[in-house]
Amino acid sequence: MQMNARIYADHAATTPVRPEVLDAMLPYFVEGGYNASSLHAEGRRARTALDNARAEIAGIIGAKPSEVIFTAGGSEANSLAIFGVTRARRKDGAHMISAPVEHHAVLHPLERLAEDGFDVTFLAVDDQGQVSASAFEGAIRPGTILASIMLANNEIGTLQPIAQLARHARERDVTFHTDAVQCPAYLPIHVGELGVDLLSISAHKFYGPKGVGLLFVREGTPVVAQTLGGSQEFAKRAGTENVAGIVGMARALSLAQSERETVSARISELRQRFENGLLEKVADVRINGHAAPRLANNSNVSFAGIPADAMVMRLDLEGAAVSTGSACAAGALEPSHVVAALGLPERWQRSAVRFSFGRTTSAKDIDRLVALVAQVAAELRTFSAQNA
Amino acid sequence: MQMNARIYADHAATTPVRPEVLDAMLPYFVEGGYNASSLHAEGRRARTALDNARAEIAGIIGAKPSEVIFTAGGSEANSLAIFGVTRARRKDGAHMISAPVEHHAVLHPLERLAEDGFDVTFLAVDDQGQVSASAFEGAIRPGTILASIMLANNEIGTLQPIAQLARHARERDVTFHTDAVQCPAYLPIHVGELGVDLLSISAHKFYGPKGVGLLFVREGTPVVAQTLGGSQEFAKRAGTENVAGIVGMARALSLAQSERETVSARISELRQRFENGLLEKVADVRINGHAAPRLANNSNVSFAGIPADAMVMRLDLEGAAVSTGSACAAGALEPSHVVAALGLPERWQRSAVRFSFGRTTSAKDIDRLVALVAQVAAELRTFSAQNA
Repeated sequence: MQMNARIYADHAATTPVRPEVLDAMLPYFVEGGYNASSLHAEGRRARTALDNARAEIAGIIGAKPSEVIFTAGGSEANSLAIFGVTRARRKDGAHMISAPVEHHAVLHPLERLAEDGFDVTFLAVDDQGQVSASAFEGAIRPGTILASIMLANNEIGTLQPIAQLARHARERDVTFHTDAVQCPAYLPIHVGELGVDLLSISAHKFYGPKGVGLLFVREGTPVVAQTLGGSQEFAKRAGTENVAGIVGMARALSLAQSERETVSARISELRQRFENGLLEKVADVRINGHAAPRLANNSNVSFAGIPADAMVMRLDLEGAAVSTGSACAAGALEPSHVVAALGLPERWQRSAVRFSFGRTTSAKDIDRLVALVAQVAAELRTFSAQNA
Repeated sequence: MQMNARIYADHAATTPVRPEVLDAMLPYFVEGGYNASSLHAEGRRARTALDNARAEIAGIIGAKPSEVIFTAGGSEANSLAIFGVTRARRKDGAHMISAPVEHHAVLHPLERLAEDGFDVTFLAVDDQGQVSASAFEGAIRPGTILASIMLANNEIGTLQPIAQLARHARERDVTFHTDAVQCPAYLPIHVGELGVDLLSISAHKFYGPKGVGLLFVREGTPVVAQTLGGSQEFAKRAGTENVAGIVGMARALSLAQSERETVSARISELRQRFENGLLEKVADVRINGHAAPRLANNSNVSFAGIPADAMVMRLDLEGAAVSTGSACAAGALEPSHVVAALGLPERWQRSAVRFSFGRTTSAKDIDRLVALVAQVAAELRTFSAQNA
């Protein structure tokens, strides 16, 4: 019996830590595992590592070091942005703008604020998942204090016209946040070019460790801390600094930055090979978001008539890890809120599967995956036809 | 020239990771660094590690696994407890009870709530830093929804009569939270015996990694999530699970549990040796909190006439890491709010230095530290007398 290695095609859910990243982290557990807020020599060494990591990350994203607020991940960064700004700007108004395709880490804070009397406009998206910049501009009104629109969608990969949106926001004094959690491996994250006030990323999406992320907070942007205590992170986020994790994130971001062009080009080609293969071998498929600019590693595919859960489970048994959408909502039986927002006919809605590739994905993986998907799709359709 | 190794006597600020803890974590970075919320085989293996860690920790603290909510550390656990309960119980009232010796991670959330119309009673403490159970009982009134009193103080080590306080709270339907961040290495943490509804701990205080902690939430205790998004942690705390960190915390807690008696006895003796040495060799010292039950590893000492900062800096230069109090407030020039709350004469207030020992502390360290402190105290007093 020949054993094939498993195919991991769920890089949008998480990426394992790169060995180089772990190597960078190791000195800060046992030997150098001190408190970066302590004033003694042991603490100062930890502080130096923290400062260096902050400066490195700031340099890469075009920020000042004091604009980088380390968090425990992307969800915390999003909650801090949304709750932090709305608390600070409550006197200016209570209206916000967002989109129905956002991650739950944006939608749920907005829903919480709606309970508290805030009003949220959710912009419609087109059938590729994009918002319109003119609709965004039209939604701004007196009392609009915050907009949160993601840079790239976590399920279908669609990019939003963030620089345009942020420009409209700036002209009308609307604080602009973008969830860029899916992006650093594939898109340059430059806060100056994007023009955003707030931007969230999470290390484990680009081969860094889990449990660490950051919120970029442009100087002068009013953000009130949500985790309170010590004055760490410029008094915007309390808690003893996770130096090892932060050092790992800096290393991972630096590697992502230097390899981005090469890796994106290679993965984009593999994605094309995958989609061409599917279109050739499987009938009745729709590639969601493909007509819009999208992340190089994402392929979200609907298989008419095949429940997405069934496809994911069969592929897992056959040796391929894929998902129905956000891992954070995995286990939920509802169809994806992102795919639902595209306004597609019913048959495309409950059959959407997310394939997301990464730096370890090979052409051989792609070919095996296409063959597996074709085989599983055929089996599931036969089964369903026999039971109709 | 003979080089002595440095003496680390700031274990209350942080403890470096134990090698056994790092070993337990290592499989969950590179090889097993997957998303515990993913449904495929890779995700399920991460989920199993997470479930096992949760069950192990729950077993040690006497909780059900579903009562253990992982956070990014002690500060987040405290903010979650305080903001989470007050939001859930706002309809029941807006009064809280706490004490002036709490960590800023408790005091600052209470101050935030005071801005929002909540009322907080801060119980007085005696000159050892203890609150009185009868004063606590007397402070409960209709509309009291939450009390937060720490198990052991982070600066002076004083233990509070938590089981008694929690009993009073339970009788009057007051949700009871305790910050136990300083305790797991030295005190059994059993939520049944303590009778608390909520309890915070942080892995890096007991040789686990930074960036991970937990909030125990007794079943039925109303707590609303503060970081929103996915439904991780029983919908009480969103964010991709930091499996490596959580596995490390479980290992660290298990080691702390099995070694606690031996280690506490040994460190308690070393602490006695330290304090005896100081009392013998240095004039005009006061050991803060020593007459109350206190943590085995803590010795908070005031040196009349010597500014605490000067003592800490000179000791650092001479090779000993100690602190003026909480690392989270390090760098602040104000005297410790904990020492201030003891109501001591002025000369004891600005001269309090925290020495905190740990499993690597040796009798030789203690003897060297006593000699160093005596030498530095003499120098600083001579200097100050010459400049008077």
